[in-house]
Amino acid sequence: VTYCIAIRLDEGLVFLADTRTNAGVDNVGTYRKLHVISPAPDRLFVLESAGNLATTQEVLHRIDRDLAAPGDGPNLATVAHLFEAALYIGALSREVAASHEGAFGNRRDATATFVLGGQVGDGKADVLLVYPEGNYIRASDERPFLQIGESKYGKFLLEVGVHAEVDMVTALKVALSSMVSTARANLSVGPPYDIGIYLNGTHHLEEFRVNAGSPALERLQEFWSNRLRDAMDELPPISPADFSADAH
Amino acid sequence: VTYCIAIRLDEGLVFLADTRTNAGVDNVGTYRKLHVISPAPDRLFVLESAGNLATTQEVLHRIDRDLAAPGDGPNLATVAHLFEAALYIGALSREVAASHEGAFGNRRDATATFVLGGQVGDGKADVLLVYPEGNYIRASDERPFLQIGESKYGKFLLEVGVHAEVDMVTALKVALSSMVSTARANLSVGPPYDIGIYLNGTHHLEEFRVNAGSPALERLQEFWSNRLRDAMDELPPISPADFSADAH
Repeated sequence: VTYCIAIRLDEGLVFLADTRTNAGVDNVGTYRKLHVISPAPDRLFVLESAGNLATTQEVLHRIDRDLAAPGDGPNLATVAHLFEAALYIGALSREVAASHEGAFGNRRDATATFVLGGQVGDGKADVLLVYPEGNYIRASDERPFLQIGESKYGKFLLEVGVHAEVDMVTALKVALSSMVSTARANLSVGPPYDIGIYLNGTHHLEEFRVNAGSPALERLQEFWSNRLRDAMDELPPISPADFSADAH
Repeated sequence: VTYCIAIRLDEGLVFLADTRTNAGVDNVGTYRKLHVISPAPDRLFVLESAGNLATTQEVLHRIDRDLAAPGDGPNLATVAHLFEAALYIGALSREVAASHEGAFGNRRDATATFVLGGQVGDGKADVLLVYPEGNYIRASDERPFLQIGESKYGKFLLEVGVHAEVDMVTALKVALSSMVSTARANLSVGPPYDIGIYLNGTHHLEEFRVNAGSPALERLQEFWSNRLRDAMDELPPISPADFSADAH
């Protein structure tokens, strides 16, 4: 499947995405799911994608086509606000999925879900989740992160470790921890992982890739294994007084 | 939804189930999902249920009816092996779901999934997952636990903390930790929690209930919050050397 994270901090934005795709165990591939679109000096967009791979690719191609040959409709060079970019991408996503779903019947799902992050002009940098239906929500102030794909395994670490005031390196470490524990639990998520770091006001994304076997990943995996094993040895006592025996 | 755990240890079996059910936020209820069936002195069955609540209840009623008025078919007093009990329950489950699914159409799912644990005579005590299709698998030797319902959030703790040689109290603490972190992440899982402890060869289940606000639950919640927060402060360093900048 996929696992992508986007975090909104006071300083900027952090993005992390795996690269594994599969259409059955015989057809496991590696595709970027973190895409950077930089159509003008005053704006930067980061798009993370989950769901039908063909749909996400066609949406990206249509975004590029609209930039190369602008028509009457919106495109990413002309939208005035980040939410307008989300609605534009949502409309493309619906259109592409609808154009193929007749051929799919009930057997498979042609829809895709996106996380859109970035900044337009001096508007607020933000991260938005774009639903297959074409509408969107922004990450909440209390839990300033979004996840798409296999989000359940790694949600707990993000909830404990991420707040708006956290610095960007710590947020990246927490995101990588969440990614590593998800990949351990679910074979359909795996390295290499793509990282994007955005500092507010720069309109530029720093991109990195972490490969399987990277020392950083191995340190994190070992750290969490040791920490959890130590914790298991020190779990607080339970006693019969904690329970009621009348279970019925 | 539901979250149920069953663990097979060298000493015996540990069961843990939440009690929350919902059919929409207006209709949240509390129902036992851990059921004990003790149809003869030489055998004990524990049934945990997830999925359509009406189907799980009708399956339990049919089990009782077959015990009260045995026919030509199998029942839980006569099966010679635990796997035969699983196949019997699987057949009931398919029958009940099939009898209602015409009325459901595609709108909802009439199927149920069960975990069956226990011991028949001096056969091996075991835990089996009974699929809606009526077949079953046993917990693996490497990861001797089964989960049904909202299993993803709490899988990591079970994987780290549970092996066959773990003692039963530790296994129960790990199971409660997994339950507490699931309930924190997902509103559809919640207390009270039902606990069953089975010592090999006894053909008797010790049952307990943990209520919301129990000191044991509060100690576990606080323990994990503190441990994770401490860990976040001590995450191993990452450096540019861990990454490759050529992300494309």
